[in-house]
Amino acid sequence: DPAEEASLSVATNFAPNRWVKLNVGGQIYATTIDTLVGREPDSMLARMFLQDGNMVPSERDEQGAYLIDRSPRYFEPIINYLRHGQFVCDSNVSILGVLEEARFFGIYSLVTHLEERLGQEEDPQSDRPLT
Amino acid sequence: DPAEEASLSVATNFAPNRWVKLNVGGQIYATTIDTLVGREPDSMLARMFLQDGNMVPSERDEQGAYLIDRSPRYFEPIINYLRHGQFVCDSNVSILGVLEEARFFGIYSLVTHLEERLGQEEDPQSDRPLT
Amino acid sequence: DPAEEASLSVATNFAPNRWVKLNVGGQIYATTIDTLVGREPDSMLARMFLQDGNMVPSERDEQGAYLIDRSPRYFEPIINYLRHGQFVCDSNVSILGVLEEARFFGIYSLVTHLEERLGQEEDPQSDRPLT
Amino acid sequence: DPAEEASLSVATNFAPNRWVKLNVGGQIYATTIDTLVGREPDSMLARMFLQDGNMVPSERDEQGAYLIDRSPRYFEPIINYLRHGQFVCDSNVSILGVLEEARFFGIYSLVTHLEERLGQEEDPQSDRPLT
Amino acid sequence: DPAEEASLSVATNFAPNRWVKLNVGGQIYATTIDTLVGREPDSMLARMFLQDGNMVPSERDEQGAYLIDRSPRYFEPIINYLRHGQFVCDSNVSILGVLEEARFFGIYSLVTHLEERLGQEEDPQSDRPLT
Repeated sequence: DPAEEASLSVATNFAPNRWVKLNVGGQIYATTIDTLVGREPDSMLARMFLQDGNMVPSERDEQGAYLIDRSPRYFEPIINYLRHGQFVCDSNVSILGVLEEARFFGIYSLVTHLEERLGQEEDPQSDRPLT
Repeated sequence: DPAEEASLSVATNFAPNRWVKLNVGGQIYATTIDTLVGREPDSMLARMFLQDGNMVPSERDEQGAYLIDRSPRYFEPIINYLRHGQFVCDSNVSILGVLEEARFFGIYSLVTHLEERLGQEEDPQSDRPLT
Repeated sequence: DPAEEASLSVATNFAPNRWVKLNVGGQIYATTIDTLVGREPDSMLARMFLQDGNMVPSERDEQGAYLIDRSPRYFEPIINYLRHGQFVCDSNVSILGVLEEARFFGIYSLVTHLEERLGQEEDPQSDRPLT
Repeated sequence: DPAEEASLSVATNFAPNRWVKLNVGGQIYATTIDTLVGREPDSMLARMFLQDGNMVPSERDEQGAYLIDRSPRYFEPIINYLRHGQFVCDSNVSILGVLEEARFFGIYSLVTHLEERLGQEEDPQSDRPLT
Repeated sequence: DPAEEASLSVATNFAPNRWVKLNVGGQIYATTIDTLVGREPDSMLARMFLQDGNMVPSERDEQGAYLIDRSPRYFEPIINYLRHGQFVCDSNVSILGVLEEARFFGIYSLVTHLEERLGQEEDPQSDRPLT
């Protein structure tokens, strides 16, 4: 299976400027390996694409995008943070939603920042977790 | 019909990490069976994909996604809840819209949480049902 | 023309659980005939898909979706209303936009409800029609 | 080139109920020639599709949609206005953005309406043009 | 490789009205070379498409769109600015997000304008960069 071979070679041959597609919950994101591993080399995303990482790369969909079973909406501020090192999101976007993704992907500088922002808000219980 | 056969084998052979696509009202969501059945095994979604469930899996579209005749917009907080156990949604999103989907899919822990939130809001009648 | 034949057979053979695709202004919606005709059998949408309706079904695009020259954004609350009988929309969505579509599709219970809501709002003239 | 021929025949044979696709800045809109020329026959859009117009129809993309190098987001209220004669947009949408498109497409009744609305708003300078 | 050849010829043969597709972080934008180089000929985007520019055009995806590893959401006001020379964005959109893209693409008239707007806002620290 040539698609399978291509998948393994991306993961094992470190190529920072190589383009990859991510299928996050059904939505396609295009980015480079450099973005995924450069800023936060210890994150789960980085370890998926680093040569000596101990993670197996995820499955790929029929167009070759790596499947990730997470929210596409709240992944957007995550990937932007990895691109340029700033947290930006629109005023209606739930900070708790982004925090949940930052924790899942193990991006701890962002987790700290978002927890501080949530702590400063007036009615934090309105987005309190259920369980 | 090979598509029909594939559909049945997904439903009858329980494979938690298997990826599935859902076509919710025209929009594609990608997720795993583990997400659909893990947190709320008694929900309608779970029973569609559990081996000994008494539900017939829904029809699939031409790309193999399971067709579900519901709102894609309000399904998004539902699938995120099944992924990580928290309810998060943006500030402009109608809680009543999400509640409607939580009831349809039989996700009762979320129904209870959303009914409490709606009860606490100032002008609940603005989203009062028509019928 | 086989596409033409398929179109006619959908319209003339009443099959409530049959899936149909609608191309509303360029966006695809997936739903069932039961949703389109069940709640409001006298609406224009219902009459497009009822066997003894006097409307000709609209043209279909290259993927078989029925073409409807209306706003996809404001159609979304319409189809959700047909799915479950409640009007829900996000807080930033224009009620006047939804009302315009409810009138076009002849869904009169929803028209009445939306006119009442608009009448209760503080500055109704801000969305006053131009002509 | 058969695509080129099809393009010319749409433009020169006036067919009001004929469906056309527009590719506005990358997003596809589906509409009819009747909508594009009926309400504002002197607009740029109308002249692109009128038989005796002096405009050359724009290029088409690989799926046959007419390419228009403008904002898809602010085109949406424009095409809805051409569909039913009312200006509706969501509360977060920039009126200045829609005005810019109305001017480009030469839809003067809408330009006048939007200029009045902008003149009535409290802080019009917040969206003041740069140049 | 004919796709590779086409890519080089677009970049080296200056054709202002030529249509190009940009794949910005996974989302497709359609525009013309004239828009990309006309208003801000010194920007990074312009230099990618100018004949005597010193930049190598970026890679292209499988449908021929130029890959750019940036936020599609905040690119939208950038490309609209290049189309008509005005900055417009919806009220919920983060100005800091657009500023970050304007800096990346080297569109300095817009950078200046956005920095002034951010300086005038009440709580600028809410979007303060992390690093």
